[in-house]
Amino acid sequence: MILELVDIHILLDQQAEFELALQRGVDTVISKALGCCAYKINKSLESPGRYILMIYWKTLENHTVDFRQGPLFAEWRALVGPYFAVPPQIEHFTLLGASA
Amino acid sequence: MILELVDIHILLDQQAEFELALQRGVDTVISKALGCCAYKINKSLESPGRYILMIYWKTLENHTVDFRQGPLFAEWRALVGPYFAVPPQIEHFTLLGASA
Repeated sequence: MILELVDIHILLDQQAEFELALQRGVDTVISKALGCCAYKINKSLESPGRYILMIYWKTLENHTVDFRQGPLFAEWRALVGPYFAVPPQIEHFTLLGASA
Repeated sequence: MILELVDIHILLDQQAEFELALQRGVDTVISKALGCCAYKINKSLESPGRYILMIYWKTLENHTVDFRQGPLFAEWRALVGPYFAVPPQIEHFTLLGASA
């Protein structure tokens, strides 16, 4: 399992619209992607307009190849891309440890 | 429930030692803190020396007051602080949505 962490900063006056678009994007696009196991949407308390989207993929290639190079990526970006203040920072992580 | 996301960059030649210290820190300090519900340790695939520590607190004040202003904070920093290349970036998040 690989965690894709997406660090999103949006235009400040569009939070309500973005949150609807993001929920629609994970419901209709991300959750249907090959190897997508789970997701979480987190909203910052300190930085208005900052969101952390966590997507758990079965393999790294399910994200980098199957999703990013497949048809779903354009659908996803069409929904959420218009709200981005800057391009999201994306990085992948492995789980080293967790509480029981 | 509040997510504390700790974005850590360590000195590059000390990953093995840091990972032991971090595990010891969550086992012996963080997991004993008032209101600490769970944690996850994530290691970057793309950025050597970058780790994302997720700590789930019952309330924001369990972190910002009870932990940061209590005696456990010095214990925690004594264990993991020597490995930091820069001060960790810390931010709090609420959960807006998640997969079923």
